[in-house]
Amino acid sequence: MLDAERTISDLKHLRELTGNEDGAQRVAFTETWARARAWCRTLVEGFPITSETDEAGNLWFTLKGDSPRTLIIGGHLDSVPNGGWLDGCLNVLAGIEIIRQMCRKYDGRPPITIRVVDWADEEGARFGKSLFGSSACSGNLNLAEARTLVDAAGISLTSALQIYGIDLETAHQAGSQLRDAAAYIELHIEQGPVLLDMDLSLGAVLGTFGVERHAITFRGQAAHSGSTPMNRRKDALLASANMCREIYAIAERSHGGVCTIGSCVTHPGIVTSVVETCRITLDQRHLDADALARMLEEARVASEQFASEAKVSVAWERIWSIAPQPFHPQLIDFCEEAIIATCGRCHRLPSGPLHDAAEVASASIPTVMMFVQSLHGISHNKIEDTREEHLIESVIAFDRLAQRTLEWIQTNPE
Amino acid sequence: MLDAERTISDLKHLRELTGNEDGAQRVAFTETWARARAWCRTLVEGFPITSETDEAGNLWFTLKGDSPRTLIIGGHLDSVPNGGWLDGCLNVLAGIEIIRQMCRKYDGRPPITIRVVDWADEEGARFGKSLFGSSACSGNLNLAEARTLVDAAGISLTSALQIYGIDLETAHQAGSQLRDAAAYIELHIEQGPVLLDMDLSLGAVLGTFGVERHAITFRGQAAHSGSTPMNRRKDALLASANMCREIYAIAERSHGGVCTIGSCVTHPGIVTSVVETCRITLDQRHLDADALARMLEEARVASEQFASEAKVSVAWERIWSIAPQPFHPQLIDFCEEAIIATCGRCHRLPSGPLHDAAEVASASIPTVMMFVQSLHGISHNKIEDTREEHLIESVIAFDRLAQRTLEWIQTNPE
Repeated sequence: MLDAERTISDLKHLRELTGNEDGAQRVAFTETWARARAWCRTLVEGFPITSETDEAGNLWFTLKGDSPRTLIIGGHLDSVPNGGWLDGCLNVLAGIEIIRQMCRKYDGRPPITIRVVDWADEEGARFGKSLFGSSACSGNLNLAEARTLVDAAGISLTSALQIYGIDLETAHQAGSQLRDAAAYIELHIEQGPVLLDMDLSLGAVLGTFGVERHAITFRGQAAHSGSTPMNRRKDALLASANMCREIYAIAERSHGGVCTIGSCVTHPGIVTSVVETCRITLDQRHLDADALARMLEEARVASEQFASEAKVSVAWERIWSIAPQPFHPQLIDFCEEAIIATCGRCHRLPSGPLHDAAEVASASIPTVMMFVQSLHGISHNKIEDTREEHLIESVIAFDRLAQRTLEWIQTNPE
Repeated sequence: MLDAERTISDLKHLRELTGNEDGAQRVAFTETWARARAWCRTLVEGFPITSETDEAGNLWFTLKGDSPRTLIIGGHLDSVPNGGWLDGCLNVLAGIEIIRQMCRKYDGRPPITIRVVDWADEEGARFGKSLFGSSACSGNLNLAEARTLVDAAGISLTSALQIYGIDLETAHQAGSQLRDAAAYIELHIEQGPVLLDMDLSLGAVLGTFGVERHAITFRGQAAHSGSTPMNRRKDALLASANMCREIYAIAERSHGGVCTIGSCVTHPGIVTSVVETCRITLDQRHLDADALARMLEEARVASEQFASEAKVSVAWERIWSIAPQPFHPQLIDFCEEAIIATCGRCHRLPSGPLHDAAEVASASIPTVMMFVQSLHGISHNKIEDTREEHLIESVIAFDRLAQRTLEWIQTNPE
């Protein structure tokens, strides 16, 4: 029998072991993170489950089955500094309970192979680049960029990896771990307020948003705040202000996308001068690639209109972008069925944040995620929390999803 | 005969003497500023004109008349660092040519006393507080504040003044210089684009704007740019953006006022988070005190509405304010007549920037200023410039204003 309560007590134990009064401290490639992993390995002692670390530092628990075709359950023990007690590790600990349950159910030999993976450095908190381990597996790791990464203390990613026996140059060889993968499932806290607002405990995730991230710089003319008539101004802040409003209309027209202007920097930035230069950052996300492209185009057109109205120039600079990663339709259906069987109601929603699941899906492996409600809609903070009854429901529903996916792999030809 | 060409050549000589390739360098209480003053004293050699420095460091040139009642012509030799070649010193040098002309005209003894004053530290470039000398005379110098002022090198205003023989504690005794003042007139470059846009060389100044200067801080909630639906955001930048637009409507409704948001600072200010805190600065100016108060009230009401719409809080903090200083109606008429007599057309306009004239007017001395067109509408910059034919017109018209004011003082009982 599945023991969902056990997952709660494991989570609490991990919190004691690797957190302090400021929250979770399991930053990847640190001693605390290694301690979390060592303790996790003890959870499968006495079971015919092997554990190993691959070339990218991902920790794999394997229950061999009759077929090498594999169901993978993923998560990550690493946290941001002062992080929450659930983000990432709920997935790993629920996965470990489920693999133990499968082991009992199938008497140590399930019809297909089942693995739990603890991805290395999902957060990217120390080196500024997330999804290290999963991107090494998916083939998306940008080695040239990774070689240049250093932490705040000046330590390179290369050096930090060496301490844990990982050679950055051969990390991509971890890709062999996905060779027999037939499906990938991941449970995660929502990290947003959608399920909370709908008073739902669980949701089926449609995929991860694509992201377009740009800096927009408007340039006008500094001018004396007292002697310059309003109609003579070339006010870079006015154009930016219009953009800050317009993104709400763009997001609304996109049906499901979000847009954020998170930073606004003014020059000369003094009380007695019209703003000459204003640089804002724009982050746009959508699950649909065409809709994302439309959002970006609408923002460009609007920026040019506002620049013209304010008599300023505008320049765009791409910071980063990634394509949307839709999940597998059949697995989304299974996820919804498992949720409804557990708590009667389900909502399908996209994921705004990225997850390791997006890397796995990009390697053409059928993938789905399940979200459990976040209180306050907040994560990456010690106040991150989820009601215990919702956590229990999530483990039960996720076990149902795992079971159904296993059956699907069995009956579904390669 | 008035020699307006002489003023141009004096201005060019001063530029050679006290400027470099970056512009004018006559920052108050520096060696270059003292050199400019010493040279100015040579311009009245051979005339029965005395010069003296008062307790606040203001330099006075006096041509005694039959009556102690005095017409004062004011200006300032000090400049900002890398300043323009006209700001402030045009007034002094035109004033010296006019006092020399009066001397010739009245054979050394005019019916009333005529003085030219070079105010000390109009710009406040070094210690961050403008109108030092004129506010000492008007009685508005805030001694408690002045005692705390230090420059970027850590030198106190008190120490800098001592080098030039000025005791900050007794600077206010300079007020006695205004005892017999019957009128004050000042010529200045416009430092804005109004006359340029109207293709006029000269304008009569109605007074100096009152100023309300505030910081407005909106506080919302930082939230993940990917996982937070638009309708769940508490976006401090959205409220600020609405203010940045609204000030244009407020200024338009005010009929003649100006509003500027010159600085916008966002926290956490990162591309992946909704803005939690946004601090903007608001500078509002109007010639009419009631209109200025309405502009401020409208901004307050708007900020509360926008805060409410964006689900954030708002807090105001006064940075600085000063009342409008309207000039003398009769002298404004004289100024206009002198301009029309010189170049046929005149425009009446307020002054956005403050001037020493505002301090004198606040001491209940009939005051007016005349503006001459600024090319590009720009000052406080080495590209500050005015066409030579406009400078010549300005000296001629200003001489007419001085003559008419002198006659008015003669005929106008005390």
